Formats: sequence, C-alpha cells, structure tokens
Amino acid sequence: MGLVIMKFGGSSMSDAGRIKHVAKKIVAKQKKGNKVVAVVSAPGNTTDDLIKMADGISSNPPEREMDVLLATGEMISISLLAMAIDVMGKKVVSMTGPQAGILANEDYTRARIKKINPQKIKEQLARDNIVIVAGFQALNPNGDITTLGRGGSDLTAVAIAAALKSDLCEIYSDVEGVYTTDPRVVKDARKIDYISYDEMLEMAASGSQVLQSRSVEVAKKFGVEIHSRSTFSENQGTIITSKEKIKGKEMESFLISGISFDKNQAKFAVTAPSLDTADIVREIYGRCAEIGVNIDMVNQSAVSDKKSVISFIVGGDDVKKMRKELDKIVLDYKASVSCAEHFAKVSIIGIGVKSHGSVAARVLEILRKNDISIDMISASEIKISCIINEIDMLKAVEELHKGFELSKK
Amino acid sequence: MGLVIMKFGGSSMSDAGRIKHVAKKIVAKQKKGNKVVAVVSAPGNTTDDLIKMADGISSNPPEREMDVLLATGEMISISLLAMAIDVMGKKVVSMTGPQAGILANEDYTRARIKKINPQKIKEQLARDNIVIVAGFQALNPNGDITTLGRGGSDLTAVAIAAALKSDLCEIYSDVEGVYTTDPRVVKDARKIDYISYDEMLEMAASGSQVLQSRSVEVAKKFGVEIHSRSTFSENQGTIITSKEKIKGKEMESFLISGISFDKNQAKFAVTAPSLDTADIVREIYGRCAEIGVNIDMVNQSAVSDKKSVISFIVGGDDVKKMRKELDKIVLDYKASVSCAEHFAKVSIIGIGVKSHGSVAARVLEILRKNDISIDMISASEIKISCIINEIDMLKAVEELHKGFELSKK
Repeated sequence: MGLVIMKFGGSSMSDAGRIKHVAKKIVAKQKKGNKVVAVVSAPGNTTDDLIKMADGISSNPPEREMDVLLATGEMISISLLAMAIDVMGKKVVSMTGPQAGILANEDYTRARIKKINPQKIKEQLARDNIVIVAGFQALNPNGDITTLGRGGSDLTAVAIAAALKSDLCEIYSDVEGVYTTDPRVVKDARKIDYISYDEMLEMAASGSQVLQSRSVEVAKKFGVEIHSRSTFSENQGTIITSKEKIKGKEMESFLISGISFDKNQAKFAVTAPSLDTADIVREIYGRCAEIGVNIDMVNQSAVSDKKSVISFIVGGDDVKKMRKELDKIVLDYKASVSCAEHFAKVSIIGIGVKSHGSVAARVLEILRKNDISIDMISASEIKISCIINEIDMLKAVEELHKGFELSKK
Repeated sequence: MGLVIMKFGGSSMSDAGRIKHVAKKIVAKQKKGNKVVAVVSAPGNTTDDLIKMADGISSNPPEREMDVLLATGEMISISLLAMAIDVMGKKVVSMTGPQAGILANEDYTRARIKKINPQKIKEQLARDNIVIVAGFQALNPNGDITTLGRGGSDLTAVAIAAALKSDLCEIYSDVEGVYTTDPRVVKDARKIDYISYDEMLEMAASGSQVLQSRSVEVAKKFGVEIHSRSTFSENQGTIITSKEKIKGKEMESFLISGISFDKNQAKFAVTAPSLDTADIVREIYGRCAEIGVNIDMVNQSAVSDKKSVISFIVGGDDVKKMRKELDKIVLDYKASVSCAEHFAKVSIIGIGVKSHGSVAARVLEILRKNDISIDMISASEIKISCIINEIDMLKAVEELHKGFELSKK
C-alpha cells in the first residue's frame, strides 16, 4: 500500500466543475490502494483578487496581515475539495497549513519551512481519511499564519512527501510535464520523460515555470521523486528524480535536456573607484539577500587604472527594487549606476554540458550563424546561459532547439 | 484608562471605504485614552457567497468543512481592517478566533463558547496594539476551526468583554439602536435609551434582530454593559444593562419597552391517543434540542375521551426541519400531524407586564377593537405574545404601539 502526495494548482481548482474533477482523480488514486494526501492552491484568480482588496486599503500593507488575507484562498480550496470528496462517499478531512503541522521561520510573505510535524496527518491517514492540506501557508514561532511565497504550494507538497517518506509526489498543473522548451513557443518541443533534480533546478531558475525552484531543492535533499503531470489528461508526465535513478531507466541520458528562456532581463553596470569595488559587490549581495532579489552573471572588470565596472543581470519584477537599492548604495561611494533593459536570457541545460566541452562551442556557432550577438555568457556544471537582445530571443530558442535536435527522442 | 470592545457587523465592512471609516472610529476611540479590541464580521455578502460556493459542490456538505470555509470571511475582514489602521500610523495586530483564544465545544456550525484564554489579547494590548479579532469563529477541542452560528460575532464581542472585564462592549450596526418596534414598519417607533437584559432577550427571541440572544445572555451573566449603536452616526444608541442600573438612571422605568414581531410562524398540531401525549411531547422536545429548533407556546388539550391535541408554534427556517422530524415521530404512535402556516407572532415586552395585570387586558382590548383575532396567547414575566394571522401583523403592531403610547418618552 503506497502513500501518494498529489498537488493541484489554482487552475485545477477554479470552479465547482474542476474541483469535482480533482476529487475524482483523488478518489481514483485511493481506489488503486493508496493512502492520499492532496495539497491545493487557492482557486483560480482568488489570490490576485485578495491582493486587489488589500491594494484598495493600503499601498504598503503590513506583511503579517497580508499573509492572514492570502491564507484564506487555500482555506476555500481545502474546504470545497473536502466537500466534493465527501459527496463521493469517501472519508476526508481538510487541514490548514498550521493544522497540518507546517512550521516556518519568522519571515512573512516568503517564509521558509523549518520543520513539518506530520503527526496529525498520519493520524488522519490511519483512520482511512483522505487528507486535504492547504498549500502555501505555515505557522511561525509567534503562532502567526505565514505564506511561503510564489509557488509555495509545490513546496508544501514536496515537504510533506519528505516528512511522510512518501513514495511519490505528483504535481498536477495545466501542462503535461516538463518540455525541452516552452511548447507555446517552439512547436517541436518534446515532453521529457525523466529529468534530474539539478537540471530541473536550472530550468526553473532560468525561466521554466512548471515547478518552483525551492520545491525541487527540497525534493533533491530528501530524495522525493516528483511526477509533474496534467490535471486534465491521464498521460504520463515528467519524472524529476536523481541522476542515478534516471541512468537506471534510460540506456543513455541526453546530452541536453532542455532550453529555458526569460524575457525582461536588465543589465546593471556600476562604475566605481577600483578600490571600492570589493566593498560594493559585498554590499550588493548583502542587500539583495535582504530584499529577496536574485542577481546573476556578476562580472567585474577594470576600465582604467582607477575605475572598475561591476555588471550583473536582474530579471522581471526585481529590476525596480534593484534600481532603488543601487541608488542608495552608490551614494556612499564615488560611483555611478546605469541600467540597460530589454535583454533576454537563454539557457541550455543538460547533464552533458560540462563533460562535453563541445556544447558551448555549438551554442556559439548556432547563434553566430543566425546573426544573434551575445552580450554575456556564463557556464555552470549543467547550464550555459547567454544574455542576448530580447528581440532575438525566440529565434535563438528555436535555432538552438533545432541545432541540438531536442525534438528527437 | 478604559478598555472598550467595539464590534462591527458585515454591513460596516462591505467595501474599502467602509473599512476605512471603521478604522477611523477605532483610532478615534483609542485617542480618547482607551485600549481597544475590535471584533468584526465577514464583509457584506461574503458569507452568503461562500455558502453558494459550497452549494455548487454539495447539497449536504460536512459541517466541519463548512466551518473552515465560512471562517475565511472574518479572516478577510480582520486583515483588511488591520491594514486600514496601519495606514493611519497606529500599531495593530489581527487575530483569528483560535489565535484570540476563543475555545468552543465540539459542535460545528453552531458551537458554544466554553472559555476564552485572553492572554494573547492582553499581551498585544500591553504593547499598545489595537487588537482586531475575527468574530463568529472559535477553536474546538480537536484543534478544528468552528463557527458560532448566526450572529456569532456579537457573542464573540460580549464574551471577550467578559473575559477582559471590559467597561463597555459597543455593538455597531446599520441601525441606531434598539427601538420600541421596527422603525421600518412603524414610523413613530422611538429609540430606547436603556433596556434591561431580560427585556432585550425577549425582544431578540421574538423577532428583533438588533442583537443575538446568546450574546445578551452572556452579557447578563457577566454583567457586561452593551451599547448598541450605529456605525454611520455619532448618536447615542441603546444601553443594554441590568434593571438595577437602569433604575438608577431613569426616574421611572417604562411599563412597556417595545413590541417585536415575527412573520412566517407555523402552527403544528399533533393529534394522538391521550395516553401517548406525554411521551410524544418529551420526544418532540428532545428532537428539537438535537436539531436546534425552537418551539414556542406548547399547548395540550383533550379533544375526546381518548384523543388529545398537542399544538405549538415554530418559526421561519425551522418549519421544514420540524415537519420532517414530526413525520418520523408520529410513525411510532397512532398519531397524525397537521401544519398551518402564515401566522405571525406579536410580542409586547416590558418589565411592567407581570406587575401590571392590566397590560394583558389592554392588549386584548386593542386587538379586539381592530377586529384582529388571536389564535394563541402566552405570557411570561416580561412578555405577552399573541399568535395572529400574518395578514393582520402590521396593523396589530401599529395599533399596539399607538395604544401603549410608545412613541412618547
């Protein structure tokens, strides 16, 4: 008898019909002889609606109160889903994050899970209940409700799977799994059967939105196998697991797993006296950690005897925040800051990147052939990222997908 | 330095503008040197909307899950109100019912408060915080969220006032206070300055919807003075307090305080062998307690040597439930049941009812003069209730209000 954690996102919970559909999937899973814990997000646009309500009151609401407000979305989901399962004659019980024993640190709106006390979930499973847990929310040491940040429900599901030593964590969404690249952009994109945690992490960090990065990190740490699949079909999706397990399943793993991409990248350049650059870099990293901004491709180079330039990439919503912080930081030094926008980051991800030096060469070759100039490039163990003009992004993705023959299995 | 409990109903929380208005009232109260705990209901129609969502899933949802769903309404209110107070630069903290230490029994959807642990509220008040508490909800011994039934936020407010030994519990709504009768029906209705707990209980039990009965019971038990007043004006409302305190404030208390009324009353008549009537009555009371139905004016009379009729009044939503129960009960006896609808109950309430025998006579006289026939009549220490045809109700209320000169102070 297995134990399966099933996680359903907001689009799977957006109306009564979909909630009933999810209930059927859960009951079917139980009928196959499994104990089931389902983790759910807030229905459809509920979270956005709640944020709008807060906007009507305050432009800068206290984070503690924001979390109380947002937590209601998942409570609506758990209660309605429990009702839908009850209608089918099955024993079911809902739990908020705090009730499920999800304990977090003191941060609001982006809390980190410290520990899960799975005792209550275990008790309910032992009574043959299906257990429905509110994703995204936790209890902090003050007894306050907190939330885990965007995509936090994935994290809840994986963390529960780890705490219960579950065989499998199924993450259902409106896509069929992880693709070699975004199928809405490249028609030939192929669904990946197996991908390693590390590759998935790089995919998530560089633009793929199928799974939240932190949930993949936790899955890797505790060896939880994730099955990313669609709520609306019975097809096999993508298994995210360890390199070792994949090797056992595929004769030879792919050199390149996929291509991810992200628009709205901005390139910051701070020009400062060379003597100060170390301090400034340290301060930038420190401030970024505090305000929760990710910076990438940090590069430092001397432009004269006395002047150096520190450049780095910041994406999406973080650009504004970063700009504000930098304006403050440069005040303390004889430094100036510039920001160029409309860049894109295209990343080639695969466990073969490092071992096959030829990958980087092929990337450069493909882009050069297509007259796409590269502004910055960086490589890690399993990823090569290129910063290019936003306008070239789709072409770059298509040509790289074709060049590495990713549509072929 | 006083401690004031302020309770605001759903119509006071129905949009951002109203929430900001409530925030201003709370801050103004604090500025006068008070510590403030505010108890709030779900915004406007939120509770009805949530019930509709549940209806879309199940015609008979589990009560435990219904309570999880309904509790979200007050959580939205507390967080938004806390944000509105924060914008005004005041220290504020919100608490759900469970966080505020409101402990209830094991019933769902109509839990009874067993105890309040006011420690957390006290801690926050000591830190000069305004404390916003979600009304209507509590924590049960299983660690589940439960709700207190219709009007439960009044109960939360009064119970907190009792637990904190507060000087005053202000209950704000969209009416100016308690009137001699419904001012929407009788133009001359007069706002009452002071009314005793017992009179208020009778008013609430017989149709006045200003305050929930259970909250008045608790106020009486713990000597909490309630001030029922309007959110939308600064006028003095009605003070609900003990007879003794009222006597100190008014030279002579009124013979009659008010007239309440309630449509949709149904008269049940169970005809059964006389030998069985005692058993049947016992069973009816037992089942009513279990399903939460109130019966009134129970009357038993022999119609022949062997047959008796048990008749009683049931109001509003309870009629359907009662009919179902009676159908089951009569099966066990050689009994039959009939139900006549479209009755109304008109009640004359005042501490002078019993001591002045003339009140009953005057009621009968006024109704007779106006050709209104009385179907049943009952009298208690402070109330006389008449069952009449629904069609005569408004006229009866108007004529009694005029006859007892209630518009004069």
